[in-house]
Amino acid sequence: MDFFVTILGSSSATFHKLRGLTAHVVSFKGRYFLIDCGEGTQIQMQRYGTPMQKISSIFISHLHGDHFYGLIGLLSTYHLFHRKAPLHIYSHAALREIITMQLEASETTLAYPLHFHVIEEGSDAVLYEDEEISISTFPLVHSIPANGFFFQEKNVKRSLIKEKIKPMNLPHEAYSILKDGEDYRLDDDTLVRAAEVSKNAPPPRSYAYCSDTGYSEAVVPYIRGATLLYHEATFLDGDAPSERLRKYHTNSREAALIAAKARVNHLIIGHFSARYNTLKPLLDEARMFFPNTVPAIDGKRYLINYQDE
Amino acid sequence: MDFFVTILGSSSATFHKLRGLTAHVVSFKGRYFLIDCGEGTQIQMQRYGTPMQKISSIFISHLHGDHFYGLIGLLSTYHLFHRKAPLHIYSHAALREIITMQLEASETTLAYPLHFHVIEEGSDAVLYEDEEISISTFPLVHSIPANGFFFQEKNVKRSLIKEKIKPMNLPHEAYSILKDGEDYRLDDDTLVRAAEVSKNAPPPRSYAYCSDTGYSEAVVPYIRGATLLYHEATFLDGDAPSERLRKYHTNSREAALIAAKARVNHLIIGHFSARYNTLKPLLDEARMFFPNTVPAIDGKRYLINYQDE
Repeated sequence: MDFFVTILGSSSATFHKLRGLTAHVVSFKGRYFLIDCGEGTQIQMQRYGTPMQKISSIFISHLHGDHFYGLIGLLSTYHLFHRKAPLHIYSHAALREIITMQLEASETTLAYPLHFHVIEEGSDAVLYEDEEISISTFPLVHSIPANGFFFQEKNVKRSLIKEKIKPMNLPHEAYSILKDGEDYRLDDDTLVRAAEVSKNAPPPRSYAYCSDTGYSEAVVPYIRGATLLYHEATFLDGDAPSERLRKYHTNSREAALIAAKARVNHLIIGHFSARYNTLKPLLDEARMFFPNTVPAIDGKRYLINYQDE
Repeated sequence: MDFFVTILGSSSATFHKLRGLTAHVVSFKGRYFLIDCGEGTQIQMQRYGTPMQKISSIFISHLHGDHFYGLIGLLSTYHLFHRKAPLHIYSHAALREIITMQLEASETTLAYPLHFHVIEEGSDAVLYEDEEISISTFPLVHSIPANGFFFQEKNVKRSLIKEKIKPMNLPHEAYSILKDGEDYRLDDDTLVRAAEVSKNAPPPRSYAYCSDTGYSEAVVPYIRGATLLYHEATFLDGDAPSERLRKYHTNSREAALIAAKARVNHLIIGHFSARYNTLKPLLDEARMFFPNTVPAIDGKRYLINYQDE
């Protein structure tokens, strides 16, 4: 429950009456990150109870409007609410001037520090890192520069075996030492061996975000083994109305193939064309190739748990 | 029923759970005009059944975000829906570059002609005119250049007195001639006198829009005698949290005073601060000075009728 993503919008390009435009809130141990910010993201945050002031960084995948037109409004609302905490934006270069120009037009000097970090076209790099999580980016295949994101926890601790630990009545400090894999010596010189009272650390949990993108196996190395993958599935196989949309978006079958090739645990499909009133056909198509698929639903929270949880 | 305004958003600055950001759709004899376009206007249009493709012109009062951040999304949606009809935007100068830059970032060439018309700071001028309506602008008092709008019908016809006309069994062509105030001669040489079978044309109907603005009697000459006036009433008297907001916004009492001084028929107050969960105090305050006041309610349609209708 300390790592989850809340989907605020699952529609592509235009609103659907049941679906807003793209925005994901990633929550990890009290940190809040926003990926993309389509128009109306603020409204969705209010509707679904997002602690909007806790968001520290915003990652914009690409500069198509359905992924960022809500950003300037969110920045303005932070200002009006007297935000003081710094805010970091990671995006392709043009966004900075788009935002700056709009703030200038309204003669607004933001009440909080706003830091832009440029994602270079085609780059793969670590964007953010602290003791417990790293956030990296990688290129997608789209009509304009577009990047995916990979959130991975760091320094996962061993887990204590309760049945063994409890009868020992260890002092509290022993727990973190054993979780780090070090043995702990009691006052009577008894050695408590980490290997005996704890299990190996599970693989670190991770969340991968791939939208917008055409089908591309080039992303597989970047997202391999992800606990949870969000991959766009704009259309059903064969439904793309033009060769261009076929090339720069993914269908449900292809999203599932990427999930399978990358051996992720769970797949969320989303970024659905507004033509679909029901998601069942998209889900059915994906599950033929990757059974562990769920649809993106606005307002729904998706847990990113260890495999045995 | 051929002249009305639909309010799509009645909140100021930030969303309120019951109120969207400013946007008014003015409908006049099959024409549709949009005034302001806060974030989420598209969503409100969908919710309230606005025929969005019929909008031919958009008037932006000023470049504070709560009045125009929804515009770029609306323009993009028109593009995605393959709009062909030209669209006219009337605004202060900076908007053109803000829009252009965002279209360039997404490498979008709009599918329809987009025409920008600059409203010069402090200007009063006719912006649009056809046979039946004129739309003019006038300066407001705000922290950045801001303009109000005045929609007035033209060439109002005389109205036929049914009880007199019906028994005469006139040919259809006679109606428009008599409505124009000309007499009509029958085949048997009888003269039907317009003055006898029709009433003088009523005063032309009009809609005035004043937002955002501090209290200013300078607007009175521009809106005098309006059938319906929308005037911002952001706060209750005494509630403005700073001298700046006091100066650049109007309270409910002041909005009513303007309505009284301008001798309008009806007043809509709106642009309410998100601090107000109920509008009754704002309405009560206004009605003390101008009884014929109603509150702006999202999705509600306000008819602009002749006085005796």
